[in-house]
Amino acid sequence: MKRTANAHWNGNLQTGKGEISTQSTVLNETQYSFNSRFAEGVGTNPEELLGAAHAGCFTMAVSAVLTQSGFVANDLSTKATVTLDPAAQQITGITLELTAAAIDGVSEEQFTAIANGAKEGCPISKALSATPISLKLIYG
Amino acid sequence: MKRTANAHWNGNLQTGKGEISTQSTVLNETQYSFNSRFAEGVGTNPEELLGAAHAGCFTMAVSAVLTQSGFVANDLSTKATVTLDPAAQQITGITLELTAAAIDGVSEEQFTAIANGAKEGCPISKALSATPISLKLIYG
Repeated sequence: MKRTANAHWNGNLQTGKGEISTQSTVLNETQYSFNSRFAEGVGTNPEELLGAAHAGCFTMAVSAVLTQSGFVANDLSTKATVTLDPAAQQITGITLELTAAAIDGVSEEQFTAIANGAKEGCPISKALSATPISLKLIYG
Repeated sequence: MKRTANAHWNGNLQTGKGEISTQSTVLNETQYSFNSRFAEGVGTNPEELLGAAHAGCFTMAVSAVLTQSGFVANDLSTKATVTLDPAAQQITGITLELTAAAIDGVSEEQFTAIANGAKEGCPISKALSATPISLKLIYG
């Protein structure tokens, strides 16, 4: 299964401009630039898109493990925070903060094990296995 | 520097629904689901968002290296293809295909070295160092 996205750039680093599009067109020549990445300019940036990919993958994986265990997820909300060290040009870590409504029959201990499994096993986490990933959990 | 994104999910894996949002709001409760990820449903999916992050990062990095070398990028266009093995729940590779208009004073050999440097050094590539990344290049 293949999923695609496109980026276009014209000009130098600081004053040039780029656009990013995805196969589904939810991003459609969406603007990005030096300022939207490293300052507070309008537009997207690769780090928030990585966070979106990771939050989306992880949250779906929690639902998947619950489903496999015979439970149905109530509200699951994950905030992914991607920390970039601009000087080193290095993503130093990603934090996933999951807030989950209580599910009948699932203890906090069980839910913690499920969430940790999803953090380890979701495809985006595995692709990012060279990057430190931490999980914070609020259950119930 | 911190960049954030949020995902929300409700329900089981196959019939549940999710939404993804980014700090910049270019994704704003954008729909994703089992079908938008593993079939051809409407909405985004983590893999195309990962491709968008990677294409955007890599393309900007090519411009950055050109800028450092005293050149200005003309049109740079990158297509990222993320291959997912759904059975293994594993991203098996990412291909970056860069099409670049010729730049005065930059030979194809020089440009190839610059593009390879960007592929190795951009923050998203480094975060994905556990994942095979290949580069195809059309220059001039």
